[in-house]
Amino acid sequence: MRLLLAEYEQAATFLEERTWERRPEFLRLNPAGVLPVLQLEDGECFCGAIIAGEFLDETAGALMRDKRLMPENMVARGETRRITEWFLVKFEAEVNRYILQERVFKQLMRTEEGGGPPDSATIRAARANLANHMQYLESLASSRDWLAGTEITCADMAAAAALSVLDYLGEVKWETAPVAKEWYARVKSRPSFRPLLGDKVMGLPPSSHYIDLDF
Amino acid sequence: MRLLLAEYEQAATFLEERTWERRPEFLRLNPAGVLPVLQLEDGECFCGAIIAGEFLDETAGALMRDKRLMPENMVARGETRRITEWFLVKFEAEVNRYILQERVFKQLMRTEEGGGPPDSATIRAARANLANHMQYLESLASSRDWLAGTEITCADMAAAAALSVLDYLGEVKWETAPVAKEWYARVKSRPSFRPLLGDKVMGLPPSSHYIDLDF
Repeated sequence: MRLLLAEYEQAATFLEERTWERRPEFLRLNPAGVLPVLQLEDGECFCGAIIAGEFLDETAGALMRDKRLMPENMVARGETRRITEWFLVKFEAEVNRYILQERVFKQLMRTEEGGGPPDSATIRAARANLANHMQYLESLASSRDWLAGTEITCADMAAAAALSVLDYLGEVKWETAPVAKEWYARVKSRPSFRPLLGDKVMGLPPSSHYIDLDF
Repeated sequence: MRLLLAEYEQAATFLEERTWERRPEFLRLNPAGVLPVLQLEDGECFCGAIIAGEFLDETAGALMRDKRLMPENMVARGETRRITEWFLVKFEAEVNRYILQERVFKQLMRTEEGGGPPDSATIRAARANLANHMQYLESLASSRDWLAGTEITCADMAAAAALSVLDYLGEVKWETAPVAKEWYARVKSRPSFRPLLGDKVMGLPPSSHYIDLDF
């Protein structure tokens, strides 16, 4: 979401939401109770990165000409959406959800909210899933200029965003995916990525190469 | 997918795929290994009902004028996508996936594929999730003409499709959601729904009211 807003030059204010607290005010904005939610100045909400992304593309993106991150061609649009969904839904459900829950959110949660020490079996399972996803990412990066094809698209933003969270935590074994590493360095060097590289999670310093553009 | 194809008057041939067999030819069409996959005559594929639905809407739907199932207004588009995703992703992950796996697919699978008798604890958990979803469905149906707002949209097709599978199996307690029942009867009476009402699952007869339009 932050990458897409920056790519489409849309100003936004970012608010933290601890979704596990299930605040009624937040559930009114998104009954599914998950992030991100894009709220317009008039109060209207777009729930989830895919739906908010389609909105941004159909409004701001449609005016961006060759900087638009959604192709015009129908088959390329389908592939862009497939790769976007792959990283925002499948990768999220199989890898990020578990690693973030165990390594980040459980530290922030109170015991009665499910907080506590990380569960190593869960982390191990998620890391095994990540290894499979890295193989797929490497095969994509090896067969295409960008992950959905010949042009850079919002699929690259989705994939890089999903990976950047893990990269911060030092979870990504880039040596196993050298071509994907080169693709990631290209996305990471874009101006839209800069604010993400300044992120800090309370009590968790980033991995040594997280902000290094030539890692 | 079948409802949308019928609503948009697109002819299609339907092929059964036992996804748990993970046929290499099928995984080449959709590396995620899940259904539905929409394949065009030239071989190009659109993976998943949301992505194939966006494609159908942008091609056939865009020519349908007032029969188009995606609103023009940006906020209404966001809400249509939210409700569509709710039923195709969230409802599927919390209810249908488990009930279908336990009550239908395990009967069709060989033991080494995970086949066997249904697990009653899993079914019980899925039914508890379904009760929550029925409450939400009832609150939507009680506050709107159609589930995404004032017009019928692809969100109604997504929701009705997700429910029709459960209705076939007699899992839907319609008496707990009388306004949703009235909405469902309206969708079910559309010509696009007729082929679904003729469906038969091997060894599992439909519930007594499944084909009854005035159930």
